[in-house]
Amino acid sequence: MSALSEGLTQILIPLASLVGIGFAVLQWFLVSRVKLSSQDSSNGYKQKLIESDEEEEGINNLEISIKCTEIQHAISVGATSFLFTEYKYLGIFMCVFGAIIFLFLGSVKGFSTKSEPCTYSQGNTCKPALANAIFSTIAFLLGALTSVLSGYLGMKIATYANARTTLEARKGVGKAFITAFRSGAVMGFLLAANGLLVLYVSINLFKLYYGDDWEGLYESITGYGLGGSSMALFGRVGGGIYTKAADVGADLVGKVERNIPEDDPRNPAVIADNVGDNVGDIAGMGSDLFGSYAESSCAALFVASISSFGISHEFTAMSYPLLISSMGIVVCLITTLFATDLFEIKKVSDIEPSLKRQLLISTVLMTAGIAVVSFFALPSEFTLFNFGTEKEVKNWHLFFCVAIGLWAGLIIGYTTEYYTSNAYSPVQDVADACRTGAATNVIFGLALGYKSVIIPIFAIAIAIYVSFSLAAMYGIAVAALGMLSTIATGLAIDAYGPISDNAGGIAEMAGMSHKIRERTDALDAAGNTTAAIGKGFAIGSAALVSLALFGAYVSRAGIKTVDVLTPKAFIGLIIGAMLPYWFSAMTMKSVGSAALKMVEEVRRQFNTIPGLMEGRVKPDYANCVKISTDASLREMIPPGALVMLTPLIVGTLFGVETLAGVLAGALVSGVQVAISASNTGGAWDNAKKYIEAGVSEHAKSLGPKGSECHKAAVIGDTIGDPLKDTSGPSLNILIKLMAVESLVFAPFFAAHGGFLFKFI
Amino acid sequence: MSALSEGLTQILIPLASLVGIGFAVLQWFLVSRVKLSSQDSSNGYKQKLIESDEEEEGINNLEISIKCTEIQHAISVGATSFLFTEYKYLGIFMCVFGAIIFLFLGSVKGFSTKSEPCTYSQGNTCKPALANAIFSTIAFLLGALTSVLSGYLGMKIATYANARTTLEARKGVGKAFITAFRSGAVMGFLLAANGLLVLYVSINLFKLYYGDDWEGLYESITGYGLGGSSMALFGRVGGGIYTKAADVGADLVGKVERNIPEDDPRNPAVIADNVGDNVGDIAGMGSDLFGSYAESSCAALFVASISSFGISHEFTAMSYPLLISSMGIVVCLITTLFATDLFEIKKVSDIEPSLKRQLLISTVLMTAGIAVVSFFALPSEFTLFNFGTEKEVKNWHLFFCVAIGLWAGLIIGYTTEYYTSNAYSPVQDVADACRTGAATNVIFGLALGYKSVIIPIFAIAIAIYVSFSLAAMYGIAVAALGMLSTIATGLAIDAYGPISDNAGGIAEMAGMSHKIRERTDALDAAGNTTAAIGKGFAIGSAALVSLALFGAYVSRAGIKTVDVLTPKAFIGLIIGAMLPYWFSAMTMKSVGSAALKMVEEVRRQFNTIPGLMEGRVKPDYANCVKISTDASLREMIPPGALVMLTPLIVGTLFGVETLAGVLAGALVSGVQVAISASNTGGAWDNAKKYIEAGVSEHAKSLGPKGSECHKAAVIGDTIGDPLKDTSGPSLNILIKLMAVESLVFAPFFAAHGGFLFKFI
Repeated sequence: MSALSEGLTQILIPLASLVGIGFAVLQWFLVSRVKLSSQDSSNGYKQKLIESDEEEEGINNLEISIKCTEIQHAISVGATSFLFTEYKYLGIFMCVFGAIIFLFLGSVKGFSTKSEPCTYSQGNTCKPALANAIFSTIAFLLGALTSVLSGYLGMKIATYANARTTLEARKGVGKAFITAFRSGAVMGFLLAANGLLVLYVSINLFKLYYGDDWEGLYESITGYGLGGSSMALFGRVGGGIYTKAADVGADLVGKVERNIPEDDPRNPAVIADNVGDNVGDIAGMGSDLFGSYAESSCAALFVASISSFGISHEFTAMSYPLLISSMGIVVCLITTLFATDLFEIKKVSDIEPSLKRQLLISTVLMTAGIAVVSFFALPSEFTLFNFGTEKEVKNWHLFFCVAIGLWAGLIIGYTTEYYTSNAYSPVQDVADACRTGAATNVIFGLALGYKSVIIPIFAIAIAIYVSFSLAAMYGIAVAALGMLSTIATGLAIDAYGPISDNAGGIAEMAGMSHKIRERTDALDAAGNTTAAIGKGFAIGSAALVSLALFGAYVSRAGIKTVDVLTPKAFIGLIIGAMLPYWFSAMTMKSVGSAALKMVEEVRRQFNTIPGLMEGRVKPDYANCVKISTDASLREMIPPGALVMLTPLIVGTLFGVETLAGVLAGALVSGVQVAISASNTGGAWDNAKKYIEAGVSEHAKSLGPKGSECHKAAVIGDTIGDPLKDTSGPSLNILIKLMAVESLVFAPFFAAHGGFLFKFI
Repeated sequence: MSALSEGLTQILIPLASLVGIGFAVLQWFLVSRVKLSSQDSSNGYKQKLIESDEEEEGINNLEISIKCTEIQHAISVGATSFLFTEYKYLGIFMCVFGAIIFLFLGSVKGFSTKSEPCTYSQGNTCKPALANAIFSTIAFLLGALTSVLSGYLGMKIATYANARTTLEARKGVGKAFITAFRSGAVMGFLLAANGLLVLYVSINLFKLYYGDDWEGLYESITGYGLGGSSMALFGRVGGGIYTKAADVGADLVGKVERNIPEDDPRNPAVIADNVGDNVGDIAGMGSDLFGSYAESSCAALFVASISSFGISHEFTAMSYPLLISSMGIVVCLITTLFATDLFEIKKVSDIEPSLKRQLLISTVLMTAGIAVVSFFALPSEFTLFNFGTEKEVKNWHLFFCVAIGLWAGLIIGYTTEYYTSNAYSPVQDVADACRTGAATNVIFGLALGYKSVIIPIFAIAIAIYVSFSLAAMYGIAVAALGMLSTIATGLAIDAYGPISDNAGGIAEMAGMSHKIRERTDALDAAGNTTAAIGKGFAIGSAALVSLALFGAYVSRAGIKTVDVLTPKAFIGLIIGAMLPYWFSAMTMKSVGSAALKMVEEVRRQFNTIPGLMEGRVKPDYANCVKISTDASLREMIPPGALVMLTPLIVGTLFGVETLAGVLAGALVSGVQVAISASNTGGAWDNAKKYIEAGVSEHAKSLGPKGSECHKAAVIGDTIGDPLKDTSGPSLNILIKLMAVESLVFAPFFAAHGGFLFKFI
C-alpha cells in the first residue's frame, strides 16, 4: 500500500492545479501593471499613459505609446481572427473524427450493450465496448477543447505582453526581460495546471459510470491524448505555414530586394509576420507541449491500469503520473521565483545564463520532488505486465525511470543550446562559412544539423534502455512524464522567445530608437536559443511518449512481438521511416508556395502604391494577413490527412503488425529529421544574428549588415525558417499522434484489421 | 533435380564471363580507332592525327587535337597518381582488417584445428572454425583486390575515352554519343564479367579444401562481399570528397566571383575538377556497384547453402545466383547493340530516350532470361530455412522474386528520372523558384528530394513483401540480384555521364568552338539524369542487399526474432537510424572544409599570378590537385572508421540483438537520406542546366547565364554537389557494409558478444 492516503491524493492534485492557476493569475496581474494607452476607436476616447516613476528615454512620449498600442491591437486582431477561422475548420474536423472514433470502436463488438469479461482483472465483468466507444469520443472532445483553449490563451497572453515588453525596454533590459518572462510563465503555468485539472476531473467523472472497471476507464481516457494531439498537429502545421510564409515573404522582398530593415513598417507583410509568431510559435507550441503532456499521462495511466495496483484498485498508486505533474507545478513555481525575484538581469549577457539556470534549477529540485512522490505514492513493491510476462518492480526503480527522463531532457536542452547558440564554435563555424557564400553556409549548416542529432539520440537511447529495463513500458511512460514534469518552466522560457521577437518588431514599427531595438534584439537572440531548446524538449519527450504509446498500443492490440524479420513488420518499418520525408515535403512546399504568393503581393504593393517606400503611405497589411491565413488553412489539410489517415488505412488494410512497424519506423526516423531540421534552422538564424551583432573581432570581420557575408547568412536563415518552425516541430506531433491514434483504435484493428492480407 | 547438368553449369558460367570480357575488349577496340595525337614528351615526337574521311569543322586542326591530348594526359596522370596513393593507404587497411577477421573468427573456437559437427547438415562433420577464419580472410582480400581492380580499370577507360569523345563531337552528336557510350560499356561489361569470374573461380578453388562442407565454404565466401564493399566505401568517400572539393572550390571562385565559364583553363582547380569526375564518379561508382553485386551474390549463396539443395549438394541449383548473373551479361550484350548499332542518335533530343530505352529493353529481355534460368537451373520444388522454420518453395516462385527485384529497379530508375530530369515539372518548378532567389530554390529542392523518396520506398516495400512471402530471405537476396542482373547496362549508361562531363571540360579547355561545347553539354545533361538513375539503382539494390545480408546475419548469429519491443533491439534501432546523419555530417563537413581550402588557393593564384586572368600565364594546376588529394585521403578516415567500427563495437559490447537493431535502423533510415540527397542534388544541377540551355519560353524567362535567377540556381547546384556525389551515394555503402561485416563476424559476436550487458 502507498504511504499517501487516497483522500489526501484527491486533495493534493486539484490543489496543485489551483496553485498553478493562481500563480499564473498573479504573474498576469504583475504584467498588467505596465499600462498601455488604451485607445477605444469607437468613441475616440484616449486614456493617458500611466507610468511608474523611473525616468528614461522617451518614457513619457505619449505618441510612441499610442503607436505601440495600435500595432499591438492590429497583431492581436489578426491573430484572434486567424485562430477563430482555424478553430471553425477544426470544429468540423473534431465532429467528423469524433464520429469515426465512435463508429470504429463501437463496431468492435457490433455496438452490443452487453458487459464483457475483463481482460486483465480476471473473473470480473467490465463495461461494454459501446461504452468505451462513447467515453473515448467524449475524452477526445475534451482533449481537443483543452488543447484549443491552451493555444488560444497562450496567444492572448503573448499579444497582451508584446507591446508591454517594448515599453518596458525603454527602462532597461532587465525590466523588459522580467515582463517577457512573466508573460511566458503565465502561459506555462496555465497550460500545465489546466491540463492536469481537466484530466483529473475527467477521470473522476468517468469513474462515476465505470466504477470498478478501471481497464475501460483508462482505455477511454486515452482519447484525451488523441484529442490534444490532433489539435496540436493542425495548430503546429497551420500556424507554422502561416508564420513562415509571412516571414520568408517579408524577408525576401524587404531585406533582400528593397534593403529595408526587418520589421520595417513600410513592409506590407510585417503585421502578418508578427501575427505569425503568435499563432505559430505560441499557440502551436502550446498545443504541442500540452499534447505531449496529455499523451504521456494517458500512456502511463493506461499501462498502470493493468499493473498489480491497477487491478487491486489502489487510487494513489494509479495517480502517480498525476502526482508527478502536481509536484512539477510546485517545483516550477519555486524555480520561477529565482528568475523574477532572486536574481536580477542587469545587462544583456545575463539573459542567456539566467534562462539556462532555470533549466538546471528546475531539474535539480524536481529530482528531489520525484524521490518524495515515488516514496509516498507508490507501494514499495508491485507487479507490471510486460507483453504477457510479469515483472516485479520496486518504488525506487520508478524514481530512477522518472529521473533519467528528466535529466535526459536537460542533456538534450544543453546540447541544443551548444549547437544553436552563437556563443559556441558550431554556429561561429557556420557564420565563418558565409565568407565563401551562401552555398558553403548551407552545406555547413546542414552538416551541423546532422551532427547535432548524435548526443540527443544517445541520451534518449540510454533513457529508454534504463527505464525499460527497470519498469518495462511503464518505465518509459513515466520517463517521458519526467522529461515533461518541468513543462511550466520549459514553456515559460520557450514562450519568452516569440514575445521578445514581437516586442522587437513593435519597437521597429513604432519608430523607437536604435538603443531600444538593440535591447529587444538581445532578448530575441537569447529567445532563438531557448526556442530551439524548447523544440529539443518537445522532440525528446515525443520520442519517449510515442514509444510508451507504442507499447500501450501493442498491449492493447494483443501483439506479443514486433519482429523485424517478418515481412509485414519490415515493410511497415521502411514505409514508416519514409513518412517524415513525405510530410516534410508537403509542409516545406506549402511554405515555399505561400511565400512566393506573399512575395508577389509585397512586390505588387511596393510597385503600385506611390509613396510607400518613402513611408508617406501605409501599406495594405490586411491583404498579406489574408494570404497567410488562406494559404495555411488550405495547406494544412494534406499533411494533416497524411498523419491522421495513415494509421487508419494501415491498420484496416494491413493489420496490427504492419502498423506496429510503421509506428516504430516513423519514430526512429522522424526523431532524427526533426532534431536536425530544428537545429539547422536555429543555427542559421543565430549565425545571421552573430554577424549582425558583431560582438567579437571574428564577427566584425564578417559583418556588418548588408555585407556579402551577411547576405549569404540571410539566405541560410530564410532556408532554415520552414525547417525549424514548420516541418521540424510538426514531426514530433506526427510520431506521437500516429501512436496515440493507433492506441485508441487498437481494439478495432485487432478485431477487423488486416483486411488486405486476409484477402490475399 | 535441376534440368541443367552440373557439367554444363561449370561450362556456362565461365563462358558467360569470358563472352562479357571479350565484348568489352571489342568495344574498347572500337573506341581506340578514334586516334589522338600521341605526344611523347620525353623525345618530343608528334604523330599526326589520323581521321576518317568525314569532314566537319576543325577536324583536321592538329593544334586542337594536341591540346586535347595534353589535357587528357594531365587528367589521366592526376587520376592515376591519386588512385595509387589511395590504394597505398587501402593496402595497409586491407592487411590490418584481414588480420582482424582472422583473429576474431579464429577465436570463436579458440583457434582449435578440430573439425566440428555441422549446424544444418545434421550428422556430418564440417571444417574447423580456424579454417573458416583463414578462408574468410582470403575471400576478403580477393574481394578487395577485385574491387580495386574494377575501380582502376574504370578510371583508365574513362580517361582514355574522354578526349576521344571531345574529338568525335566535332563530327556530330551521334558520333560523340557512341564513343562515350561504348566506353561506358567497356567498363560495365568488364566489371560484371570480372566480378562473376573471380567469384566463380574462388568457389571452385575453395571447394578443393572444403569438399562436402558447403556450409563452411559459403560462410567463408561472404568475405568476398565484405572485401568488395569496404574498398567501395573508401573509394566512394575518398573519391567523393576529392571531386566535390575541387568542383565546389572551382565554381565558387570561377563562376561566382570571377564570372568565367565552367572548365575555363584559367581556373587553377579545373584539372582537379576533371580528375575528380574520374576518381569519384567512375572509380567510386564502379567499386560501389561491384560491391553490391558481390554482396547480393554472397548473401544468396549463403542462404542457399542451408536450403535443401544446399544440404543435398546440388551444384546447379546452388549456382542459381551465378547463372542469373551470367544470363544478365548475355542480355546486356544484346541490349547494348540496340544503342550502338540498331538505332542511331541524330539529334540532341534523341539521347535521353535512347538511354531510357536501354533500361526498358534490358528489363524486358532479362525477364525472359530469368524465366529460362529459373526453369532449367532449379528443382521444381525445394525447401528453404526461414529462421528456424522450413518453407516449401517452387521454382516459379523464385522467378517472381528475381523479376520483381528487376522491375522494382526499373520503377526506381524511372521515378528518379522524373524527379531529376529537366524535361518534367518537378525540376522546372525548382528552376522557377529561383525567381525569388537562392533560398526558395533550396527550399523547393529539399522538398523535391523528400518527395522523391515516396515511390521508390513503396517499390522496395512491395518487392520485399512479395519476395519474402514467396521465398523468405533467399527471395530477397535473389530480388537484389535481379535488380543488379542488368548491371552491365546500368554501369554503361552511368559511366557515360562523367565521360561526357569530362569531354565537355576538355572541349572548353582546348578552346573549341561554342557549337562543340553545346553538343557535349547536351550529352552531359542527359548524363546527369542517368547518373541519378544509376544512384537510384545503387540505393534500391543496396536496400534489398542489406536486408538479405541482415537475414543471413540473423541466421548465422542464431537469432530467432528481432523484437522491436525489447529495449536491446529498440535502442539499436534508434541509434542505427542516427548513423546516416552522423556519417553525412562528417562527409559534408569534409567537403565544405576542403572546398574552403581550394577556394583560398584559387583566389591566391588569381590574385598573385600576373596575367592569369588574361590567359597569358598558366595556373598552377598541380597545387589544386594536391589539395584535393590530401583532403580526401585525410578526411575519408573518420567516416570510414565510423562504418567499419560500429558493427565491431556494438556486436562486441552490446551483442547480436542490439546489432540487429542497428542494422535495421540504419537500413530504413539510410535509404531515405540517400535517395533524397541524390535526387535533390541532381534536380538542382539540372535546374541550373535548364536555365542555361533556355530551350523553352519558360526557361528563357529565367535565364540567361549570369542573370539573378541563374546565380540562385548556381548556389543550389553547389549545395547539391556534396549531397549527390559524396554523402548520398556513400550511404548505400554504409548500410550494405555494416550488414556484410556483421554477417562475417556473426560467429564471433554470437560466441563472445554482448560483453557490456553481461557485465551489467
